[in-house]
Amino acid sequence: MVDQSPLKIGIAGLGTVGRGVFKILEQKAKLLELRAGRPLMVTAVSGREKSKSRGINLKNLTWYDNIEHLAGDPEIDLIVELIGGASGPAYELCKRALKAKKSLVTANKALIALHGAELAGIAENHHVGFAFEAAVAGGIPIIKTIKESLAANNIISLAGILNGTCNFILTKMQEEKKDFSSALKEAQGLGYAEADPSFDIEGTDAAHKLAILSALAFGCPPNFESIYIEGIKNITPPDIEYAGELGYVIKLLAIASLDEHEGKQELEQRVHPCLIPKSSDLAQVHGVLNGILLECDSLGKLFLEGAGAGEGPTASAVIADIIDTAAGRGSLPFNMPVKLLQKIKPAKMSDHQGAYYLRLKVSDEPGVVAAVTTILKDKRISLDSLLQKPVKSSATAQVVLTTHQTTEETMLKAVAAIAKIPHVLEPPHMIRIEEI
Amino acid sequence: MVDQSPLKIGIAGLGTVGRGVFKILEQKAKLLELRAGRPLMVTAVSGREKSKSRGINLKNLTWYDNIEHLAGDPEIDLIVELIGGASGPAYELCKRALKAKKSLVTANKALIALHGAELAGIAENHHVGFAFEAAVAGGIPIIKTIKESLAANNIISLAGILNGTCNFILTKMQEEKKDFSSALKEAQGLGYAEADPSFDIEGTDAAHKLAILSALAFGCPPNFESIYIEGIKNITPPDIEYAGELGYVIKLLAIASLDEHEGKQELEQRVHPCLIPKSSDLAQVHGVLNGILLECDSLGKLFLEGAGAGEGPTASAVIADIIDTAAGRGSLPFNMPVKLLQKIKPAKMSDHQGAYYLRLKVSDEPGVVAAVTTILKDKRISLDSLLQKPVKSSATAQVVLTTHQTTEETMLKAVAAIAKIPHVLEPPHMIRIEEI
Repeated sequence: MVDQSPLKIGIAGLGTVGRGVFKILEQKAKLLELRAGRPLMVTAVSGREKSKSRGINLKNLTWYDNIEHLAGDPEIDLIVELIGGASGPAYELCKRALKAKKSLVTANKALIALHGAELAGIAENHHVGFAFEAAVAGGIPIIKTIKESLAANNIISLAGILNGTCNFILTKMQEEKKDFSSALKEAQGLGYAEADPSFDIEGTDAAHKLAILSALAFGCPPNFESIYIEGIKNITPPDIEYAGELGYVIKLLAIASLDEHEGKQELEQRVHPCLIPKSSDLAQVHGVLNGILLECDSLGKLFLEGAGAGEGPTASAVIADIIDTAAGRGSLPFNMPVKLLQKIKPAKMSDHQGAYYLRLKVSDEPGVVAAVTTILKDKRISLDSLLQKPVKSSATAQVVLTTHQTTEETMLKAVAAIAKIPHVLEPPHMIRIEEI
Repeated sequence: MVDQSPLKIGIAGLGTVGRGVFKILEQKAKLLELRAGRPLMVTAVSGREKSKSRGINLKNLTWYDNIEHLAGDPEIDLIVELIGGASGPAYELCKRALKAKKSLVTANKALIALHGAELAGIAENHHVGFAFEAAVAGGIPIIKTIKESLAANNIISLAGILNGTCNFILTKMQEEKKDFSSALKEAQGLGYAEADPSFDIEGTDAAHKLAILSALAFGCPPNFESIYIEGIKNITPPDIEYAGELGYVIKLLAIASLDEHEGKQELEQRVHPCLIPKSSDLAQVHGVLNGILLECDSLGKLFLEGAGAGEGPTASAVIADIIDTAAGRGSLPFNMPVKLLQKIKPAKMSDHQGAYYLRLKVSDEPGVVAAVTTILKDKRISLDSLLQKPVKSSATAQVVLTTHQTTEETMLKAVAAIAKIPHVLEPPHMIRIEEI
């Protein structure tokens, strides 16, 4: 028998997204009831200060200062966790809610990346739903796509622009020739970057999302700790310019793939800036948008692009999860019983195979290029392109080169050797190339 | 109680897609069982000739020459219809299968565009699943995305490249400067176009898919008959070239939007070639790929791109539907009870508002451009750009112009008047511009 009674919802966290969820549930109540097959009714909320003005009418709602009491409210069928943070109150609330046999919907990527498997186990034991579409790429339905739409496929690799802040900064640097810090300031001014932006620009946020996507794509527990992470702070205007001359743009990508290494399967997960061809789908992802490219065995390539953050897009994903729960259309949090998830050996970054871009500031003396190329030759790294540009009103030049495939270990040794050449005036700028 | 018994499947139609579905179900049986929560087992098939070699082992399967008997097989839980065609055996099979309380999965766009609402009604009355993800855009999960992932949104408009054959031809014309007929021949040689290609190149196939998408997006029954359809046969190399000079590419788009007209909601549905900006996501959809751009109120823009046809991609979508059925994760075929779908008045194409591209072959005499622009001025159509190019070794010239927004009716009158100017040597080439 289909359940047509109202689904009673408690919302924890009334920041931008929480208010967005509340407003859409209220404003589109009739439409959502039609789509869910039953009314969706917010009955309780919890936030920091009850008296704060939020544009929400709290009159018919139960207010909880204490989230433990929200989790224990016997009226509630489903808790929406929008507090954020990998540990502390969000984690406590989620555990309590699931143990109290309430379904759980969250947008909390850090929580899922670090405690997703544990929480999924609790949800499975208590036979309740646990969904987190909004945790990755905001409104882009990447989680449902991987879990349900690609169910006939083995996923070979995935690559995504998963952090809108970084993509906004890199887009501004590319389109308006800004440097990193002024692009960051503009992002902060527009509310796209936090006052302390380190979580975004150092790649941690993208890595949390990557851990979730690889778990779903490859059937393993999320393994955030093993991800190689490098942020975008060291990307400079000359890098953007030379990349452009070579037919590339620079993007912060989160990449995961299953690879064979010495006869064994390994999972490579990495977040770092990349040179990607201008013709790539991911190169067309501008500003704060997110984009994800999946390579699958039966379907081939699939590309999704849309808003990765913000009130509307994130609330859209949260409510899609709520409606799935209301309609009894659940799937297991990681698409299979959590005890069947198989750990996959993490690939070593030193074994990574790829092509590289290198920019060197050198004094404009004979023999510098010969010294650099000799080092590459000795390491059996083969050159793809090389260009040298004089720097105006100085006795220095920029040498920019790209290599064919080599290993990270070999490349790092070459870079260390190149750094020691006397006429190389700065630590070399190395960026990985992805022909994606 | 979750059903863990095998889901017994009958496949009708063993062409490319049918064989693909069969092979994946066999080769990935263990993985799919894990994802579906129960085994998926093909127990019966039906095709044209039992003796034909298909690379499929029929030994443990029941073979039906007569699809009526397949529909009546009491063993079967779910029928996969891959016969094709809007009427005849496919339609008969689907009705019988649903009435025999079997779930139905199909890739048949013509059938859904023309009989989808009727079949959905039968499925609802008999409480069985009826899914057709593979009917639109092959492996791209556009139907699930609209029905489930965008459930919190009102969709404002959608525009898609939904026919890989046309997109292949237009891509070849653009990239290799081929004319229409040699690009078509290449498509036929590669198996991307049928011997009789009219269904694809005249826009019918894209319109079938559009009818399905608009029904899902706007909550109305599919209304194929009201779609304005224009194919790509009249697109010429000069159009592609001049479009390029103006910053556009030419694509066959299927577009649907809800518009207000004289205070009433109207549904505009149209399939025709368009000039779209080179920077558009849809302009990056090359070759046989499909792409869809959705504009939604909460989420904003969402873009999906992938393989729109072929064995693997279509089978991938069919099996996703099978797994949803097996896992009890169904939704109503049109996302709400079919009796609640609301007919929406079709917009008249003559009321369409848009910008236009016009190419004229004229004799190289004074006064031609003046005559053309006077007609436009009299119709209050404002010019956006105009270029005139001499045609080598002839006394003729090409005049290419683009307009600002006007109505289709006004533009057609202007074009008719321009065609009557004595120095205009050919019927004018008019293509709509979409700033998408």
